[in-house]
Amino acid sequence: MSSALPPLYRLGIVGAGQIARMTHQAAVKLGITPRLLAEDRGDSAALAAPDATFGHPDALAAFAEYCEVVTFEHERLDLGLVERLELQGTVIRPGARTMRVAFDKLYQRHVLTSRGFPIPAFAEVRGPDDLFDFASSHGYPVVIKAARAVRGQERAVWIVENPAEAMRVLAEQGGRQLLVEAHQAIMKELVVLLARRPGGFSRTYPLVEVKTNDGIPIEMRSPAAVGPRVAAEARQLAIRLAEELDSVGVIAVELFLSTDGLLINEIAARPHNAGHLTIEGTPTSQFENHVRAMLDLPLGPTWANAPALVTMNVIGGLEGTDPVNHLAEALAIEGTHVHLYGKRARPGRKLGHVTVLSDDVDQACELARRVEAALNGRRV
Amino acid sequence: MSSALPPLYRLGIVGAGQIARMTHQAAVKLGITPRLLAEDRGDSAALAAPDATFGHPDALAAFAEYCEVVTFEHERLDLGLVERLELQGTVIRPGARTMRVAFDKLYQRHVLTSRGFPIPAFAEVRGPDDLFDFASSHGYPVVIKAARAVRGQERAVWIVENPAEAMRVLAEQGGRQLLVEAHQAIMKELVVLLARRPGGFSRTYPLVEVKTNDGIPIEMRSPAAVGPRVAAEARQLAIRLAEELDSVGVIAVELFLSTDGLLINEIAARPHNAGHLTIEGTPTSQFENHVRAMLDLPLGPTWANAPALVTMNVIGGLEGTDPVNHLAEALAIEGTHVHLYGKRARPGRKLGHVTVLSDDVDQACELARRVEAALNGRRV
Repeated sequence: MSSALPPLYRLGIVGAGQIARMTHQAAVKLGITPRLLAEDRGDSAALAAPDATFGHPDALAAFAEYCEVVTFEHERLDLGLVERLELQGTVIRPGARTMRVAFDKLYQRHVLTSRGFPIPAFAEVRGPDDLFDFASSHGYPVVIKAARAVRGQERAVWIVENPAEAMRVLAEQGGRQLLVEAHQAIMKELVVLLARRPGGFSRTYPLVEVKTNDGIPIEMRSPAAVGPRVAAEARQLAIRLAEELDSVGVIAVELFLSTDGLLINEIAARPHNAGHLTIEGTPTSQFENHVRAMLDLPLGPTWANAPALVTMNVIGGLEGTDPVNHLAEALAIEGTHVHLYGKRARPGRKLGHVTVLSDDVDQACELARRVEAALNGRRV
Repeated sequence: MSSALPPLYRLGIVGAGQIARMTHQAAVKLGITPRLLAEDRGDSAALAAPDATFGHPDALAAFAEYCEVVTFEHERLDLGLVERLELQGTVIRPGARTMRVAFDKLYQRHVLTSRGFPIPAFAEVRGPDDLFDFASSHGYPVVIKAARAVRGQERAVWIVENPAEAMRVLAEQGGRQLLVEAHQAIMKELVVLLARRPGGFSRTYPLVEVKTNDGIPIEMRSPAAVGPRVAAEARQLAIRLAEELDSVGVIAVELFLSTDGLLINEIAARPHNAGHLTIEGTPTSQFENHVRAMLDLPLGPTWANAPALVTMNVIGGLEGTDPVNHLAEALAIEGTHVHLYGKRARPGRKLGHVTVLSDDVDQACELARRVEAALNGRRV
C-alpha cells in the first residue's frame, strides 16, 4: 500500500493513542496516510488506521527505515536511540533536543531555569534526604513527580502532605527517577498551544483554560478567563520557549497562574488534550498544523471560530460503560461535536471528548456537561 | 479487530471511493470503524481504512454477514441480490426500494412521473426507432443516458445533435440499457441534500448551486443564487421525494432550474459531491449525518456556518500531476480547507476538493480557484 503514496509523504507516527488517531485523520484529509508504530491492536489509532506496525517503541530503527519523517505521540521513547538515529540521518521531528526537554521532566526544569523561564522551585530526589531537605525549605505539601512518562494511566504525580506520605511514594516508586516541586497556590491552569515549522515560522492558538479533577483534565475552555496582559505574557512565554528549543510541530506549554504570576508547569512536544477544541473551534486544528509542520508545509490560521470554545473530556466511569452505546442519548442533545476514540471503556480512561462552540461560555459548558453525562450513561 | 467494536455498530460500506473515505472518517470520529467492501487496494477509502475486504460487489452476501447495517457508495450493485438479502433479514440502508429508484435511471423516471414530480420528457431506447421517434417530437439536441451506473469515469451521458451522432452512441453502447431525454435550456443546476432517519425525521442542507464543465461538476456554492421561492420549492421537492421513497441516509436531489421552472435531473441515495462543502460549512457534515442515519442515531444541525460556502473540485489535469506534491504551494494560500483523496492522478479524475467559508461568495470562489490551480501545478 505504501508504494501508492508519494515518497515525500511517508510520515511515521510512534504511538497509537487518541492523539495519533486524530493526527492520522488530519493527515488523511490532506491525502496522506501515516504509518503507525503501535503497541497493541486495540490502541485507539490502530483501530482506525490501515498501516500499523506492532512492536515496542524500541523497534523505532526498523520503523524509521520506512519513513521520510518520524514523529511520536507518547514520551516513552529511548532518547539515546532517538539521538543515534538522528545522527545517522533519520528525520525525527521535533528532534532529539526538543524531545529530551519534553520527555525528561528533570532535564526540562534544568533547561527552563537556565534560560530564565519561571517555574516552581524543584529538586532532584535521589533519596529521602533530598526530599526532606526540600520540604524543610519549602514546607508541605510538596509535589513528587516521575521524571519520565509511563504507559497509559499509571500515576506520575503525587501531592504529599507529610514525611510519612512522602516515604510511601518513594518506597513504591523506588526504581524511577523522581523530582520534587514546591506546591503552588494555583488560581488557574492554562495551556498555550503553538505550532512551528522547521525554520521557525510559528503560530499560537487562543489560550486555553483547563479545569482538572484530581489531576485529570476535565474541561477545557477558550478564551481563558484571564486579562489581556496575562494572555499576552503566556503567549510570549510559549513563543520564546519554542525558539529556545527550536521545536517543530505542536508544543503545548502548560502554565499555572499562581499567586506569584505565571509559572511553566510542563511542556509537551506534540498535540495536546487541551487542543482538541481546535478541531471545530479553529480553521486549522492542532492535528492538521502538526502534520503540516512535520512535512514542512505552510501552517494554517489558528484563530477561534466562535466567541467561546469548550471541550469536556469523556472519562470512563466506574461502571465501565461504553460511550458508543450511549450515542443515541448524547446526539439527541443538539449543538455539540462528539468524538469517541474507539477505546475499551475502563474507569478513569479518556474515551472521547465533546466540543461546543457558542457565544456564551457557561452555556457551552452546560451543554458539553450534559452530553458527557449522557455518554457515560448518567441521567441528563 | 472487529471483536473490539461494539456489535451494534458493525457498519459495512460497499465501495471505497472518496465518498466512502469521508464517510469512514465521519464514523471514526464517532468511535466507529466501518468495514469496507473494496474492489482495489488503491481505492481512496481502502488506502485510509484498516478494515477492508477486497472483492466484487457481488460478494455482498458474505460481506453482509459481518455487518449489522450495510450501506454503499456506488450504484453498481446487483439489485436482485440486494432485494434477496433484504428479504433474508439483512439491514441494508437506504433499502432496496430506494436503491432501485436511485440506481436504475429509467425506473427512477417512471417512478418520478407516476408520483407527479417534474422531470424532463424521456423515453426508453430499445432501438434506433425509439430514439428517432422521440427526437422527432422533441427536436435535437437530445440527451442519451445509460440507465445504470458504470465504474469510474466511463461516460454515461451523451448530448447528441443529429441522427448520425445518435446512431454512433447507440452503436457504441449497444449492450446497455439506454434512455433519451429532452435537452433542457438550463439556467442553473442545483442540488438539495437531505438526511433522513429510519422512521422519517429528516433535515435538509442549504441549497447548493453546481457549475459544471463538460458535464463534470467543478464548483459548488451555497447559498445558490436563486430567490427564496425557488429555494423553498427545491427543498419541498426533496422532502416529498424522500417521503415517497421512504429513504434512509443522505439523498441528493439534482435539479435543473429550466426556463420552465424546476425539474429533477437525477437522484443519488448517498452522500454527494455537491455536499463536500458541508464538512466545514455546516455543524454536521453530510457524511456524519449519513452515518448517524445508517445507525438510527439523532441527526445533527445542517445550517450554514458562514454566509458563503464554496467547494472547487480538484480534477486531475492532462499532466497527471499528483496534487500531494503541490501541497506546499496550495497551503501557502491561506483561508481554505484542502482535502485530497489519496488517489493516483489521472486526467479527469476527481482527486480532491477545496472548501472556502467566507462572507463573500465571489471572493471565496476566487480563493478556491487559486488553490485548485496550485494543487494541479498551474501557476497561480
